[in-house]
Amino acid sequence: MVRIAILGATGYAALELIKILLSHPEAEIVAVTARQDGSPHIESVHPSLAGCLDLVCEDLESAQVAERADFAFCTLPHGLSSAVIPELLAAGCRVVDLSPDYRLNDASVYEQWYGVVHTDPTRLGSTVYGLPEVWAERLREAELVANPGSFTNAVVLGLGPLLAGQDVEPTGIVIDAKCGVSGAGRSPKMMTLFPECNESVSPFSVARHRQTPEIEQVLTQIAGQPVETVFIPHLVPMDRGILCTIYAPLTRSVDENQLLDRLREFYAEKPFVRVVDHLPSTKDTLGTNFCDITVRCYRGRAIVIACLDNLVKGAAGVAVQNFNLMCGFAETTALLPGAHRRRRSERSGEAE
Amino acid sequence: MVRIAILGATGYAALELIKILLSHPEAEIVAVTARQDGSPHIESVHPSLAGCLDLVCEDLESAQVAERADFAFCTLPHGLSSAVIPELLAAGCRVVDLSPDYRLNDASVYEQWYGVVHTDPTRLGSTVYGLPEVWAERLREAELVANPGSFTNAVVLGLGPLLAGQDVEPTGIVIDAKCGVSGAGRSPKMMTLFPECNESVSPFSVARHRQTPEIEQVLTQIAGQPVETVFIPHLVPMDRGILCTIYAPLTRSVDENQLLDRLREFYAEKPFVRVVDHLPSTKDTLGTNFCDITVRCYRGRAIVIACLDNLVKGAAGVAVQNFNLMCGFAETTALLPGAHRRRRSERSGEAE
Amino acid sequence: MVRIAILGATGYAALELIKILLSHPEAEIVAVTARQDGSPHIESVHPSLAGCLDLVCEDLESAQVAERADFAFCTLPHGLSSAVIPELLAAGCRVVDLSPDYRLNDASVYEQWYGVVHTDPTRLGSTVYGLPEVWAERLREAELVANPGSFTNAVVLGLGPLLAGQDVEPTGIVIDAKCGVSGAGRSPKMMTLFPECNESVSPFSVARHRQTPEIEQVLTQIAGQPVETVFIPHLVPMDRGILCTIYAPLTRSVDENQLLDRLREFYAEKPFVRVVDHLPSTKDTLGTNFCDITVRCYRGRAIVIACLDNLVKGAAGVAVQNFNLMCGFAETTALLPGAHRRRRSERSGEAE
Amino acid sequence: MVRIAILGATGYAALELIKILLSHPEAEIVAVTARQDGSPHIESVHPSLAGCLDLVCEDLESAQVAERADFAFCTLPHGLSSAVIPELLAAGCRVVDLSPDYRLNDASVYEQWYGVVHTDPTRLGSTVYGLPEVWAERLREAELVANPGSFTNAVVLGLGPLLAGQDVEPTGIVIDAKCGVSGAGRSPKMMTLFPECNESVSPFSVARHRQTPEIEQVLTQIAGQPVETVFIPHLVPMDRGILCTIYAPLTRSVDENQLLDRLREFYAEKPFVRVVDHLPSTKDTLGTNFCDITVRCYRGRAIVIACLDNLVKGAAGVAVQNFNLMCGFAETTALLPGAHRRRRSERSGEAE
Repeated sequence: MVRIAILGATGYAALELIKILLSHPEAEIVAVTARQDGSPHIESVHPSLAGCLDLVCEDLESAQVAERADFAFCTLPHGLSSAVIPELLAAGCRVVDLSPDYRLNDASVYEQWYGVVHTDPTRLGSTVYGLPEVWAERLREAELVANPGSFTNAVVLGLGPLLAGQDVEPTGIVIDAKCGVSGAGRSPKMMTLFPECNESVSPFSVARHRQTPEIEQVLTQIAGQPVETVFIPHLVPMDRGILCTIYAPLTRSVDENQLLDRLREFYAEKPFVRVVDHLPSTKDTLGTNFCDITVRCYRGRAIVIACLDNLVKGAAGVAVQNFNLMCGFAETTALLPGAHRRRRSERSGEAE
Repeated sequence: MVRIAILGATGYAALELIKILLSHPEAEIVAVTARQDGSPHIESVHPSLAGCLDLVCEDLESAQVAERADFAFCTLPHGLSSAVIPELLAAGCRVVDLSPDYRLNDASVYEQWYGVVHTDPTRLGSTVYGLPEVWAERLREAELVANPGSFTNAVVLGLGPLLAGQDVEPTGIVIDAKCGVSGAGRSPKMMTLFPECNESVSPFSVARHRQTPEIEQVLTQIAGQPVETVFIPHLVPMDRGILCTIYAPLTRSVDENQLLDRLREFYAEKPFVRVVDHLPSTKDTLGTNFCDITVRCYRGRAIVIACLDNLVKGAAGVAVQNFNLMCGFAETTALLPGAHRRRRSERSGEAE
Repeated sequence: MVRIAILGATGYAALELIKILLSHPEAEIVAVTARQDGSPHIESVHPSLAGCLDLVCEDLESAQVAERADFAFCTLPHGLSSAVIPELLAAGCRVVDLSPDYRLNDASVYEQWYGVVHTDPTRLGSTVYGLPEVWAERLREAELVANPGSFTNAVVLGLGPLLAGQDVEPTGIVIDAKCGVSGAGRSPKMMTLFPECNESVSPFSVARHRQTPEIEQVLTQIAGQPVETVFIPHLVPMDRGILCTIYAPLTRSVDENQLLDRLREFYAEKPFVRVVDHLPSTKDTLGTNFCDITVRCYRGRAIVIACLDNLVKGAAGVAVQNFNLMCGFAETTALLPGAHRRRRSERSGEAE
Repeated sequence: MVRIAILGATGYAALELIKILLSHPEAEIVAVTARQDGSPHIESVHPSLAGCLDLVCEDLESAQVAERADFAFCTLPHGLSSAVIPELLAAGCRVVDLSPDYRLNDASVYEQWYGVVHTDPTRLGSTVYGLPEVWAERLREAELVANPGSFTNAVVLGLGPLLAGQDVEPTGIVIDAKCGVSGAGRSPKMMTLFPECNESVSPFSVARHRQTPEIEQVLTQIAGQPVETVFIPHLVPMDRGILCTIYAPLTRSVDENQLLDRLREFYAEKPFVRVVDHLPSTKDTLGTNFCDITVRCYRGRAIVIACLDNLVKGAAGVAVQNFNLMCGFAETTALLPGAHRRRRSERSGEAE
C-alpha cells in the first residue's frame, strides 16, 4: 500500500485525483494539504466527498509530508510547486507534479512564459515528462514526473504519430482548441462566473497561452525536428472537456485510411487512446481516462480531432497512470475497471 | 429628455438598465458611477455595449450626480444605497432604488434580516413600493421608489390576486423558487463559478432568504391580513429567469377556470402580465418585461406558476416601468416595442 | 460469472447500466437488444463505449435471451416490458425491470395512469419493489424486481424515515422536484431539444405525473397509513440529477437535529445514503450511486432535501444494487470502489 | 405600412423575425404559414409570443400569400423555398429568402452540395445576395434577396476586408467555426437533444458543410480572385451564437494595428459591425444584430475572430436589415433602438 499525500487539495484536479485514488487498491490517501484557516475537513471543501475520506486539510511543511507519505501528487500553482518539490524528493518522497514547473527543459523559456525565475532549474531537462503513451519506460524509474498540460496532452496524442511518421509538415500547423471552464481553476474570477461564460464562446490567450512552448517542445522531441504551431484556445460553456482541431499540411498524398492506420498502429497497445472512425465528441470521454482521436484529409491538410476530459486524461487520470507506471502497478489500475475483460474481448474480436 | 445617472454601473442589472434606456426616446444616460480605479470606459466593463454608450465610470459624489442628472437609478449594494439616496433627493434628483434598502417598512425588520443599522429610517414606511400592477397611482407622484426584489415580484404577481380575492388562505403557503445565476450578482464568488453551479441544482438560504420579510409584507398589504409563507429558493444552471411554484391552500371549492378568471380580471389592463392556460417556462419571458402566470387546482391547493426574467421584469425592466410612470411617459416605453399595435390587435380580437 | 442481457440498450439508463456492469467482476454482458435495422454495433449507438463492449444490438425473442443469459435488465418502455418478462421468467431468467410495469400493486391504478391494460396483472402486488434501503431481505429471494422510479426513489429515501417515525403528517405533503433532461429519455422530441430546454425552467405533468401513485403507494407502505402528496416535477437545464424539496407538516415540536438523527439512524448501515448537515447539490451525487439528504424545520414544517443522479441511484445504479442483493454479491460491488476502506475510516472516526 | 407574410413560421429564425418585426413601425405581419394540422395559433407554436400576435398558422398557397402580403420572408427548407418563390414574385410580392436556395450562382454546384435539382435555376446568378455591408446599393432595387448563411455572414464580414485589401492570401485559409445548437433547427433529432449536446463539443460536417461553396463564392467575389478555404464547424452547448476563428496567411509583413485599421475603414459607416480591440465573446452580440470582429497577427498569419448571434445577424436580423434597404427605410429600423443617438455620441466623441 502506497501512502499518498495530495498537495493543494482544494482544486478541481485534486478532487478528481482523490476520487480516482479512493478506488485504487494499492493507494491510501494519508494527507491532504491546503493553506486555509482552520484546517477544514476535506468534505467541507468538496461536498461530493461526504463519507468518503476522513481527513482535514493541513498546512504541512514538506518534511511533515515526507514523513507521512511515500508519494505526493502536487497540484500547487506554478512557482509554489518547484518551491516544495526539492525538499520532498530529498526526503525520499516520489512526486507527480501537476503544475507546469518541471515540464519545460529550459529555465529561460519558463521565465519568459511564466514571468517568474525558476527556483530549481537544475532539474529542468532531466525530469521525466509524464506522457505514458510515448515514454512509459522512462517513467518506471522516475522519482519526479512532470504531468503534461491538458491541451498539450490532447495535441500531442493527436498529432504526435503523424509528425513521427512524417505524414505532416512540422510547420504551418494550426491548433484550434476548445475547453470547458474547469480548466480555468477554482479560484473566484469574474471571467469564469457562470453568467459570464454560459451561453458564450470566446478565444483567450491568443498567441500567448502558456502551454505553447510545452506543445512545441514535446512535438519537436517526437518529430525529431523543430515544430512550430499556432495555438488558440477557446472557452466553451461546459464543465469539462478539451477538443483540439489540428490543421497540419500533409507532406505527401495520403488518404484518411492511411493516417488512421498510422494512429492505430501507434496506439495498438495503449489502453487509453481510442482511434475512431466517427467524429468524436468530448462527451464520449467525459469522466474517463480515454483520449478519442480521428483524422480527415482535405485540401492538402490532415485535420486531426483529439478530445479528452481535461480533469481526467488531461490531469488527474494521467497522473495516476504515471503513478501506476512509477510504482509497477498495472497501467490501468483505478482508471479502467474491467480492463482485463475488455482486452480479452478485443483479442477475441481480432481472432475472428 | 430626462438626464439619467446610473449608480453602481458594473453589475448585471445596471447593464440591463443601460440597454433598455438606450432605446428610450425620453431618456439620456449622462453619468455612470463605479468605485473602480482608473475610471474605466463603460465598454471595457461591459463589452456588449461597444459603440453604444460613450461614458467612463466615475466615482462621483451625490452632489455631482444631482448636478448632472434629473433622475438616478441606484443599483448599489444594500447599505450603500441608503447612504447616498437622501443626498440625491435633497438635491432634487428623483430616484428608483434597486437595492432592498427602502423596501421594508420597519427599520428593525431591516436590521434583523440585513444585519446592519438603517441609516435613513424615517423614509421607511412612506417610500412608494414599485409594483406598478398594484400601486401605479402612487408611483406617479413619487420622488423615491423602492424597486421590488425579483423573487418578490414573481410571487406577488402570481399570488396577490388570489389572496386579494380570498381564494386562498393567508397561511400554510409554500413558495418553491428556482432562479438563474445572474441573480447572485457579478462579484467573483466560488459558489457562482461556472463549474460549481453548472449541471447542478441546489437550494440556498433555506428559511432565511432576505426577501422573505419583503414577500410577506407586500402580500399582507394586498391580502389585508397577515400572510405567512415558507420560501425556499433554488439555484438553477441558467443565466436568467425566476420560476416560482406557489402552493396555497384554497379557502373554498373552486376550479382552475375560476382562478384563471380571477387573474385575468386583475391584469386586464396590465401590459406586462400574461395569464396563460399552458404551463409557462422561464424562456417564454427571457429578455422581456413580461411575467407569465398560470394556476392549477389539486387536492385543496391552488398551484400558481409565475415566471419572469430576473434582470428585466425582476429588476431593470420594472425599474424603467416605474420610471415611466413617475415621469408621465407611457408605461410601456422602451419595454414593449410595437405596444400600440398589440393593444389594437387585442381589441380587434375582442370585437369579433 | 453471471451472464447478463440488457433489453432496450439504446437509451440513457441502458448506457449507464453497461458502464457500471463493465466494472462488475461477477457480471458479463452477453447480449444487448434493440429494435433497430441492421443490428448496429453498440459502439455506434453509444460512441462513449468505443473499445469497451464488442456486441451488436439484436432484435431477440425472449427465448433467445433466456438461452444466453442468466439475468436480464429490462429498460423497455412501459407495456413492452410486461409483454416479455413473463417469458423470461418462465425460461429461468431473473429480471430487474427498470420500466414502471411492475411497480404498482393494483392493475386498475396502472391502467388509469398509464392508459393501457396491464397484460401480466397477476404478478402485481407480489413483485418485490427494488428499494434496497428498506426491503433488502425480500430482494435476496426475488426472481423479478421492480426497479423504482427515479423521483420515487429520491422522495422515499428523503421522507420515508420521517413518516415511519411519525415525525410528519401523512397528508398535506408538497413535493417540488427538479430534474435534468436525461430523465425524459433519448427519443427525439421537440420538448427536449437543446434550444427548447436550455436557459429555461418549467414545470411539467402538473398533478398528473405517472410516478404520483407510485410515490404514494410506497410511502403508504412505509408509513403504515394512507399518504397523500402534491407532486410537481420541473425540468431543469442539466443532463442529470434530481433534487426533491419536500414540505411536510410536523406532527409535533421537534428540531432539526432530532430529524437529522432520525435519518442518520435509519441509514446507519446503508452505504449509499448520506445524511448531511449542509444543503446538498445534485452535483455532489453526479455519476455516483449516492443519495444525499438533509432536513430543516421551519414554521411547523419539515423541509427535506433529497438529491441523486437520476441515471445512477435513480435507475441503473440502484438496478445493479438490486442485482447484487439478488445474487448474493456485496451490495456495493461495482458501485462504490474502495468501499471496504471507506467503512473502515468511518469506524475509526467513530472510535475517537 | 408594409404587409408581411412569414412562410414556415414554426422555426427559430421565424420566431426571431416575428419578434423583430413586431417592433418595426412600418411593418405589419398579416400572415404566418405552416404545414401543421389544425391551423394552430402562433402562440401555441411559440409560447413566448403570448399576447403579441393574434394569427393562426395557415397552409396557404402562394397566390393567397401574395394577395394578403406585399412582402414575404421565406424560412422554408431548401428545395421548398425555390418551389414557391417564383409564384410569389410573379404575383408581385417581394421576398427575402432565408433558405440557401438562391445563394449560389451555379445550379450544378447547388445540386452537388444539396443533392437536389434546382427548380428555378434561371434566377441563380442574378439574385441579389443579401450582404448589406457590401452590396447595399443592389439591395435597394431587389425583388428577391438571398439572405446569407449564418456562418458565411460571420466569415465574410471578418475576412472580406482583408482579402479585398490583399492583406491575406486567397488560399491556405482555415476557418474553425463554433456555433450554438439553434443553428441546427427545431425539428426533433437525436443529435440535438439536450443530453446529447450539453456538456459536449463536437465537430460536424467536416469538409462537407453546405455553406462551404457559399463562403468561397462570396469571398471570391470580394477578393477578385479564387478563394479556397478549409471550413470546419463545431457544435457548442449554447442556444445561440457563432464564433469563427479564421487563420489566413499574410501576404506581407503587417502588424495588428494595420489590419484593425483596414477593418475599421471598411466598416466606418456600417452600423452593425463593431471592430473591437479586445477578444470578443459571442455573448457580447447575443440578441443583437451586431457582428463583433477583431484580428491578431502571429507567425505569418492573420487570426481573425468574428462573432454574431446566428438567429439575428446570422438570419432574422440581417433579413430585416435587407428588408429595410429594399423598402427604403433606415437600415437600423427595428434593429438598433436609439441608433440616432449612438451615432451622435460617436460623432461628438470624434470631435473631441
